[in-house]
Amino acid sequence: MQAIWLQNKKLSYKTDVKIPTPNNGEALVKVLLAGICATDLQLIKGYYPYTGILGHEFVGEIVQADNAPERIGERVVGEINIVCGKCANCLRNHPTHCKYRDVLGIINHNGAFAEYLCLPLKNLIQVPDSISNEDAVFTEPLAAALQIQQQIIIHPNDKVLIIGAGRLGQLIAQTLVLTGCNLQVVARYQQQQQLLNEHKIAWLLEQDIAHHRFDIVIEATGSTTGFNLSIQAIRPRGIIVLKSTYKDNMSANFSSIVVNEITMVGSRCGSFAPALRLLEDKLVNPSALITNKFPLSQALQAFEYMQQPGILKVLLQMDN
Amino acid sequence: MQAIWLQNKKLSYKTDVKIPTPNNGEALVKVLLAGICATDLQLIKGYYPYTGILGHEFVGEIVQADNAPERIGERVVGEINIVCGKCANCLRNHPTHCKYRDVLGIINHNGAFAEYLCLPLKNLIQVPDSISNEDAVFTEPLAAALQIQQQIIIHPNDKVLIIGAGRLGQLIAQTLVLTGCNLQVVARYQQQQQLLNEHKIAWLLEQDIAHHRFDIVIEATGSTTGFNLSIQAIRPRGIIVLKSTYKDNMSANFSSIVVNEITMVGSRCGSFAPALRLLEDKLVNPSALITNKFPLSQALQAFEYMQQPGILKVLLQMDN
Repeated sequence: MQAIWLQNKKLSYKTDVKIPTPNNGEALVKVLLAGICATDLQLIKGYYPYTGILGHEFVGEIVQADNAPERIGERVVGEINIVCGKCANCLRNHPTHCKYRDVLGIINHNGAFAEYLCLPLKNLIQVPDSISNEDAVFTEPLAAALQIQQQIIIHPNDKVLIIGAGRLGQLIAQTLVLTGCNLQVVARYQQQQQLLNEHKIAWLLEQDIAHHRFDIVIEATGSTTGFNLSIQAIRPRGIIVLKSTYKDNMSANFSSIVVNEITMVGSRCGSFAPALRLLEDKLVNPSALITNKFPLSQALQAFEYMQQPGILKVLLQMDN
Repeated sequence: MQAIWLQNKKLSYKTDVKIPTPNNGEALVKVLLAGICATDLQLIKGYYPYTGILGHEFVGEIVQADNAPERIGERVVGEINIVCGKCANCLRNHPTHCKYRDVLGIINHNGAFAEYLCLPLKNLIQVPDSISNEDAVFTEPLAAALQIQQQIIIHPNDKVLIIGAGRLGQLIAQTLVLTGCNLQVVARYQQQQQLLNEHKIAWLLEQDIAHHRFDIVIEATGSTTGFNLSIQAIRPRGIIVLKSTYKDNMSANFSSIVVNEITMVGSRCGSFAPALRLLEDKLVNPSALITNKFPLSQALQAFEYMQQPGILKVLLQMDN
């Protein structure tokens, strides 16, 4: 089959990869559409060591499921953490922190930029018919956006600032605006601003951020600049949610975190069920983020294309 | 009067400072005993700009109070934040974050290393007779230790690690052990270890910290080493409380905070009333921390003495 292979920080398009064989409890999934995410770009830069097929955002169709043949033909999305169910973190009901987890296209498990992938049946969730492939492929990042509200309370009266209006920032904005909170988003690029306008979400420029006024700040840039803007914008006793990973060490002023008694919350993956509910109810519109689609065979060009500033979502289509 | 004056990172002992005149609503307090704190050492190093009389931990006696003459003769401790009561943070019931605050011996208000000080009457809290001066002088740092439990829940089943067994670490240990939690303290020096033994609090060395096992870690060193040990010790989804300020910028690995969904909480001053209740009930024993007392006239030697490793509390006595 065709697949996008990462090895030693080098991506290659292969056509001779063996179709994977599902282990016990796994299903074989034919990938229909996959999304490229910031984590993929970081993996290519070598921030984490990974060798194998890249990709973790997808919608596909179950084509083989020896333990559950009745599920063959289901259109599905897939939770990316493959967990043991037995370690302290799993038993604490934090499966995304399983000590022994593999992660689709990220840790020790071949990913979604391929014609086929394998995942445990319990990871695969059926997509309601009313949700298009173009929306369903956003289930994973939308779940990550919703994870914020799983971790902290957003009060309707809160002044909330999102720093970063890229892929993740836009999805976070679309979910937080549903709380009725007083929301503003820092948006640099015209495409980002326009999309926020379409959703009637207020945006502003970096230099116009009010100092120490926001109850909650969501840092969605993964940059030192974004982090420092967060510290500047948050009020004493406020909450900063760190939603992006940071390459290497970051240098920051921690005294103001102590003196102003700031809370910082790291936030990663979320559950798929609430994301699918919002998609089914048309309360979010992630497919508006799609800037371009490329066939799998042109994935390397797609990665090149994504380097341009202001690009939002780029998808890989398996049926060319 | 005698006073310890800080100017341009230089401490001096003066004998010709004018006894302060209380403003409207203030009382004049004769200082009996004062404690030297890490913040004082940081102010001397110039981490924050301050010119004036140093010192914010004290017990004293009201000697003049024009608006409340019935309070003359009261033995008191004093809340160190002098607040406006009207700004957004005061109205949010976070007076320690008052936008316009002065702080005794720290921001724009002469401090306690002197024969007399002035504070608003509402800041001065009477000390019950059963509490000695040697215990009462710890009210402020004990309140800061208790602030942790004002901000986060410590469950009786939590595994809790305190990094740092100096002045603040010991007080935090004495308050957290009262929760029944599973508590361990990282203690480098023999004096620190012995004091913890006397309170039947378990201690360990840095190299023996179990990785990613603690539900809650209290960072009480204010050092990059302490911060990195916190990140190493905390379990996924755990809480790190930052209890010390950090000089300048600190470089840290933030990705693990995001990936492991760690919560970090900055923590500073607390309320005096609960601290006085614990002191009155003899549930804590801060005076055991006193390593030495110096008369005010020998304050400069006291600061010199404190530079030695493993020194716990050093007090300044006003009645020589």
